[in-house]
Amino acid sequence: MKQYVIIGCGRFGRSVAENLYKLGNDVLAIDENEETVQSISDKVTHAVEADATDENALRSLGIRNFDVAVITIGSDIQSSIMATLIVKDLGVKYVVAKAQSEIHAKVLYKIGADRVVFPERDMGMRVAHNLISTNILDYIELAPEYSIMEITALEEWHEKTLLDLNIRSKYGINIMAIKHGNHINVSPTAYDNIHKGDVLVVIGHNNDLKRLQK
Amino acid sequence: MKQYVIIGCGRFGRSVAENLYKLGNDVLAIDENEETVQSISDKVTHAVEADATDENALRSLGIRNFDVAVITIGSDIQSSIMATLIVKDLGVKYVVAKAQSEIHAKVLYKIGADRVVFPERDMGMRVAHNLISTNILDYIELAPEYSIMEITALEEWHEKTLLDLNIRSKYGINIMAIKHGNHINVSPTAYDNIHKGDVLVVIGHNNDLKRLQK
Ligand SMILES: Nc1ncnc2c1ncn2[C@@H]1O[C@H](COP(=O)(O)OP(=O)(O)OP(=O)(O)O)[C@@H](O)[C@H]1O
Ligand SMILES: Nc1ncnc2c1ncn2[C@@H]1O[C@H](COP(=O)(O)OP(=O)(O)OP(=O)(O)O)[C@@H](O)[C@H]1O
Ligand SMILES: [Ca+2]
Ligand SMILES: [Ca+2]
Ligand SMILES: [Ca+2]
Ligand SMILES: [Ca+2]
Repeated sequence: MKQYVIIGCGRFGRSVAENLYKLGNDVLAIDENEETVQSISDKVTHAVEADATDENALRSLGIRNFDVAVITIGSDIQSSIMATLIVKDLGVKYVVAKAQSEIHAKVLYKIGADRVVFPERDMGMRVAHNLISTNILDYIELAPEYSIMEITALEEWHEKTLLDLNIRSKYGINIMAIKHGNHINVSPTAYDNIHKGDVLVVIGHNNDLKRLQK
Repeated sequence: MKQYVIIGCGRFGRSVAENLYKLGNDVLAIDENEETVQSISDKVTHAVEADATDENALRSLGIRNFDVAVITIGSDIQSSIMATLIVKDLGVKYVVAKAQSEIHAKVLYKIGADRVVFPERDMGMRVAHNLISTNILDYIELAPEYSIMEITALEEWHEKTLLDLNIRSKYGINIMAIKHGNHINVSPTAYDNIHKGDVLVVIGHNNDLKRLQK
């Protein structure tokens, strides 16, 4: 089990902190805002009010003993950079930082961040892809040209087997799972039937996937 | 091709707007902040400065003719609720709204939002899952107990075939794709070899997936 410190508890930082704690980890949450600290205190191991740009404050919290630090200070770019520099200097091995823009990310990498994340940009891309077609429910980009998508079964597929539909050779995509209500079949065979309302999890080249979108 | 209006162009809204435009759609971006509008104007079809809580302003922009509205006003919950109510009243068929909290989401659904999204909360969950194990690169939750994960091939798998490893019956999971550098194999067969640095895209029950995490 690892020890995580989350610096900044906005919506993103709070979610990272709460989920790491739920997954059984030791989590210290730090924020300069008193109410924010209070509201997260029973969802993590410890929650402390401190200014993350104050090196002495972080040192006295024993930050150097943590395995991973996640800096999620958002709008205040200067504080995000200073906090990243300080935790790296104090000796935290793995530092993740949230960035606002490409240039912000570049600075964070230069000063030693091991990973930079863009939560709003990435979710914006996912939601845009979900919206363009009404049958796409979720989407992940695997490689520049390949994706995994969750799609609602087209009407012409209802009550047919995968063999009947021959989706693999007709569309060049693979069906990885079929969701039917609360049940999920993660090893679909050629003889599995597709029913109305089923959700298919498919993998393939973006050009082939496009042809499934209605 | 559909017509989208994005109301609020923070980091999330901007990403939704830019990606919808890149995907070939008609996109109107609205924000009350002048600089924000200027900075997005060449990345969407039209960008307009307006207060989204002003019904007359939205009406005169012809909002009712849009197929989809995405309300991404963030911190100001009252404005987010008012803007959602107005676009729904003006007759937009499909309205997506960003929420800060469960209670905010409930209000948005009550006043007619068709879909509510939590970008920071969802990305926080993804990042937390990615962090707990060093070989998990990406993660989507398919159903409460089932996920798709991208994992780095464990050392003991190098230079073995899927048949040798017998991962399906040993771990109860399915391998959906193998990424090798820039190449991606989306129909892996039993005779495909796994090499050092390969990334496997796997699907399965969370309990089974846990056993692959190192
Ligand atoms: N110097 C600092 N020390 C500690 N906490 C800080 C500091 N600066 C900002 N924070 C905290 O970081 C959190 C996130 O900051 P902010 O709300 O500006 O970012 P955001 O990107 O809009 O957040 P989100 O989108 O995750 O809600 C806030 O709770 C804020 O109090
Ligand atoms: N009444 C309004 N009319 C138009 N635009 C608005 C209104 N209120 C807020 N906005 C705009 O909405 C955008 C998002 O708001 P804000 O920055 O508070 O949210 P946020 O959740 O922190 O954003 P993000 O995390 O996506 O960066 C801002 O660009 C802001 O100018
Ligand atoms: Ca205080
Ligand atoms: Ca904000
Ligand atoms: Ca103005
Ligand atoms: Ca945000």
